[in-house]
Order: sequence, then C-alpha cells, then structure tokens
Amino acid sequence: MLMNLALIGFGNVARRFVQLLDELRVALRDEHDVECRVVGIATRRHGCAMDPAGLDGRQALETVARGERLEGLSTREAPRDALDLLRRLAPVAGAAPLVALETTTLNVTDGQPAVDHIRAAFDAGAHVVTANKGPVACAFGQLRAEALARGRQFFFEGAVMDGVPLFNLFRESLPAVRVLGLRGIVNTTTNFIIAGMERGQSFDEALSDMQRAGIAEADASLDVDGWDAAAKTAALMNVLMAADVSPAAIDRTGISRLTPAQVQAARAAGRAIKLVASAWLDEGGPRGRVAPETLEAGDPLARIDGVANAIYLRTDVMGELGIVQCGGDLTQTAYALVTDLVSVRRRL
Amino acid sequence: MLMNLALIGFGNVARRFVQLLDELRVALRDEHDVECRVVGIATRRHGCAMDPAGLDGRQALETVARGERLEGLSTREAPRDALDLLRRLAPVAGAAPLVALETTTLNVTDGQPAVDHIRAAFDAGAHVVTANKGPVACAFGQLRAEALARGRQFFFEGAVMDGVPLFNLFRESLPAVRVLGLRGIVNTTTNFIIAGMERGQSFDEALSDMQRAGIAEADASLDVDGWDAAAKTAALMNVLMAADVSPAAIDRTGISRLTPAQVQAARAAGRAIKLVASAWLDEGGPRGRVAPETLEAGDPLARIDGVANAIYLRTDVMGELGIVQCGGDLTQTAYALVTDLVSVRRRL
Repeated sequence: MLMNLALIGFGNVARRFVQLLDELRVALRDEHDVECRVVGIATRRHGCAMDPAGLDGRQALETVARGERLEGLSTREAPRDALDLLRRLAPVAGAAPLVALETTTLNVTDGQPAVDHIRAAFDAGAHVVTANKGPVACAFGQLRAEALARGRQFFFEGAVMDGVPLFNLFRESLPAVRVLGLRGIVNTTTNFIIAGMERGQSFDEALSDMQRAGIAEADASLDVDGWDAAAKTAALMNVLMAADVSPAAIDRTGISRLTPAQVQAARAAGRAIKLVASAWLDEGGPRGRVAPETLEAGDPLARIDGVANAIYLRTDVMGELGIVQCGGDLTQTAYALVTDLVSVRRRL
Repeated sequence: MLMNLALIGFGNVARRFVQLLDELRVALRDEHDVECRVVGIATRRHGCAMDPAGLDGRQALETVARGERLEGLSTREAPRDALDLLRRLAPVAGAAPLVALETTTLNVTDGQPAVDHIRAAFDAGAHVVTANKGPVACAFGQLRAEALARGRQFFFEGAVMDGVPLFNLFRESLPAVRVLGLRGIVNTTTNFIIAGMERGQSFDEALSDMQRAGIAEADASLDVDGWDAAAKTAALMNVLMAADVSPAAIDRTGISRLTPAQVQAARAAGRAIKLVASAWLDEGGPRGRVAPETLEAGDPLARIDGVANAIYLRTDVMGELGIVQCGGDLTQTAYALVTDLVSVRRRL
C-alpha cells in the first residue's frame, strides 16, 4: 500500500529516516506491504517543499546538505510552513493514507509547536508518527482523544529509548496487563557524565567531553537538570499507566550537585549513582520522580552504563520485566518512525 | 468473539491458565474482544472430557484436584485421547474459532506427542497455541508450513522465558529487523545451582535444595545437561533467525562438571560463571551453543541471578537489545497462552 508522507521537521532524525526507508525498501514492501512517497517537507531553516506526485528524497537530502533551501523542489507554490503544508496536503489524504512525521525540536514546557503540528495533521486527515517526546509528555490525553474522534492513528515509539519498542511491546504484546510502576535509566548524557566522574573527571570536564563527542547539546541543561528524563517519565506514565501528567509534575532533581567524590565513594563501596526515572501508583494516582539514586550492586540498573538505557516495568500479571537498549544512535530513532509507519499500515 | 478451546494436557500450566482466563475475563472481553469456552480437555492421567456447549472450567479443576477422572464431565461419550478429541471437535470449528492449547510435557528428542497433537489440531481446523518448546525446537518449519497451508494460526510465546513476549516483540514490534545473533540465560535450575555453589554448597546440595523447592524436577538431567537450554536455543534460532535446527544440533555442554571451587574463584575475581545459550550466523548458516561461560563483571548477563532470565538480541538496524524477566512462575507461563489467544483473535 502506498503511503504519502509529510515530513514536519527535517533534522538529523528525519534525514536518517529518509535514508533508512530506502535501505529497508524491499523488506517493507514485501513483508509489510508498506511503500512510501514523501509528498511534503516543512522545515524552519531550510524552507518547505511540496509535490503530491512525490519529492525525490535523495535530492532533498543533498539540497539541505549543501545548505540550500527546499523551495526549488516544489512543483507548485512552496508552502509557507508546516501548518500551510498540512492544510494543502489535506486533499491528498483522500487518495492514499497521509502520514505526518513530526520530528521538530523538543519543547519540554508545553510540547509546542509539535502539538499544533499534530493537531493540524489530524485536521488534514493525516495519521501521525512522531519521535518527539514533547507532545506525548505534555498533551497525550487530548491528542489521543482527537485521533480517536477523527479515526486517525497516533504513534510515538521514538519518544523514549529511541527505537526500542517499549510502547509497542506494551500495546501489542502485553494484553490485559496493568503497569503498576517503572524504573529506568533514560538519559544518556547524564549517564556519561556520572561515568566520567567515576573515572576522576570533574563535572565540567565530563560534560565538555560529551559535547565534543556530539552526544550532549551545547545547552546541556535539558539533560543535566533532569528535564529530558522528566519528559520521558511523563510520556511513559501517560501511555503505560493512564496518567495525565506533564513534565512539570515530575518530582525532579538533576545531577549538577553531584561531586566526583560522592560518585567515586559509591563506586568504591560497590554501589553506583545513577539518574533514575521512576513512577508508581499511590492513593492519589500515578506519581513520577527523576533523581540521582545510589544503587546497590545487585540492582539491574546499576550496570546500565554509557550509552545503554533500560526500563523495568512492574506489572500485575507478568511480574517485573526489563527492556535494555545496549546502545542507540540516529539509526535507532529513525527506525522508531519506520516501526510506527508499519503500525499505521497494519491498522488500515 | 467467542472462541472454543481444546485443552491438550491439563497439568499445572493449563490449570493456572483456566484460572487466569477467569481473572482476566473483563479485560479480555472489553479490551480485546476475546471470550473463551473450554469445549474439550484431554489428559494422559485424568482421562478426557468434551462438551461442545462448554465444560465448566472450575469443575474440571476441582475434579482433577480430587484425583478423579474427567470423563464424568462429558455430556457425550468421552474422547479416548487428544487425537480423538480433536477429530470429534472438528465440526465445532465451523461455528466459532477452535483453538487447541497444547501443554503436554516437553520431549526434547522429537517434540512428540506434542507435534502430532498440533498436526491433528490443524487437521481439525483448529488454531494452535502452545507453551511447549518441543514442537518449536524440533519441527517448527513443518508446523509453520502446515499452519500456512491450512490458513491456521500457530503461536508459542510460552516456549521460552514464560510469558515474556519475546517472539511477540520480534513479530509485532521489530518489522524488517534481522536478528544476527543472541545470548541469554534461559534455564533457572542451572542458574540456581551455580548460585548455590557460589555460596559454598556442593552441586548435589544445591540441586537437592532446588528439588525440595519444587523448581527442579526429580530427574534434573534435562536442566543440568543443558537440554532444556538447547531446546530453547533451537526454538529461538528457528523463529528469530530462520534456522531449521533441532536441539541435537546445538553444541551443548551441561554444568555437571563445574565445581564449587571454579565457581567461587570466578566470583572472587569479579566474574561470574553462567550457563549461556548463544546463537550466531556463520558461513554455514545459524549456529547454536549452550555451555558454561565465565563472564566479565560488565557483561549484562553476569548479574542475571536466581529466577531471572534474560535474552540479548544482536540485530542489524536496531543494534543490541535485551529483554529481562526478573522472575517467573506458573502465572507467567499461563499468561503466555493468554497473549497467544489474543494474537489469534487479532488475526481473525
């Protein structure tokens, strides 16, 4: 089945996604009956392009790589922005399923502009796939309700742990199971900084190393202050525990007050300090927390080091189970979008 | 949707399954449109019963608990055995989907009689759900082909790691991903015996403890000699790596030659000896191995202790990812059958 794609955001994740679609083309077509055509791209810095007959993905990648704008690829008047693109693609949604892939930058306060993009996509008759944790952390309840009301689909596997299929696992493979709580390590930058301090680096040295390696952003406060982990915790709670929380509702402590001495003392005693995301049910409903914790050696999170991430779910029927991502990069996040496309296809 | 169930085998797993169906009844009906009726039970020691209008599950549990035979529950002439039951249930398969739940004892050599039961079920127009690893380890290729030819479904989530949805995860949540290899700890008895030796017990003392606790069988050779792990490895390879192997093709070393001194020396050096199941691709195709291995402290399998099991998959697109079961009991194995029932329903 041919699916029309509108790329809202065309940063590293979306660009890797376009390549991956090409690399996996045969398996997707033959095993999952998924064939894709990019009919629109909206960016903030590189302009927008639209062609209902299909844009050339490779040409778009090259254009942006050269630092040029995308307008020239448009066969008709180029859209002004994401909302304009989605409005003008609405008629296309009649012929073949239209899927909007939202990959704009995380806004941890209110999930904008991604939330507006997703609403506009539903308005245009599009299904939505996103790797952006903002909307799931800040507005999951409303977005799910809007998707339901319009008979559209909404998937977001890439929002937490890249392409590790955590939401998918819960949705598809744990029927009738209730998640009672969870614990995890979900932020790589902080895990690396703590590891650097274990080896004797100062906080600032460890952070600089991460920034030089391209793992941490120039403004690392989202990671260091626990906002990224809090957004992921809120997303996990909203989806897996039927909560209705935003990142601000997570009890949050970052790692900026940790000292190398503390971290090394814990390690010397066989323990490990980690930034742990957790959620549980109390009488008032689901509660969430992000904070540095000193873990015993036997704790399954104690050895989740470096680029590894892990989430352990506590359930009613299935006891406790963990899913571990040993390493993640752009390809895994881009793959999450592919998984979600297949999920959309399966339900059509 | 009403589904008719034929229980082939009525041991601990099947009995817990009958209870669990009752405990999860509302969620299964309201969220997954699954309603079940047991129309036949075939056992080796407690006789057989059949009633196309539905047997009373609780009554069957009580009958067997009292050590009595099931024939009295039959509204018509009781079936002689599983094959007779399935033949006589064939007409029922027209009215509502018939699902055979195969839970007889593991036979690691050829998967019998479970393989014959599954074939007879397909002949009778039934879908098949099994928690028995024998058929998946010994005859997966043929059984899958027969299911396909007859348009029947065949699921086996309980064959490895109880209800942890490993096969389901691969099938539903990792589209277009290739598994290049795997490593895991999949046998609890051997993991416990090694832990006992770490604490200073002899092999025989540790084994006796396990048998007294009801975790190890009186004849523990299936576990100790690595056959159980080899059957699971073969099942994993057949399903995840498109292999066509049987347990005998797995390069297998048990733990009976391990000594407490070896195990303790490893632990003192910060390492851990574990019975590791692994599989990989070489030029001749998929290869499998079960053997005690000395793991470095940083190995994610080194801390999989006690009742925990874990499998790490090495993939092309998604890198390496692990799934960890922190503890398993009858409920989890029985839940695997429930998951599979929901999978059958979704495809109808």
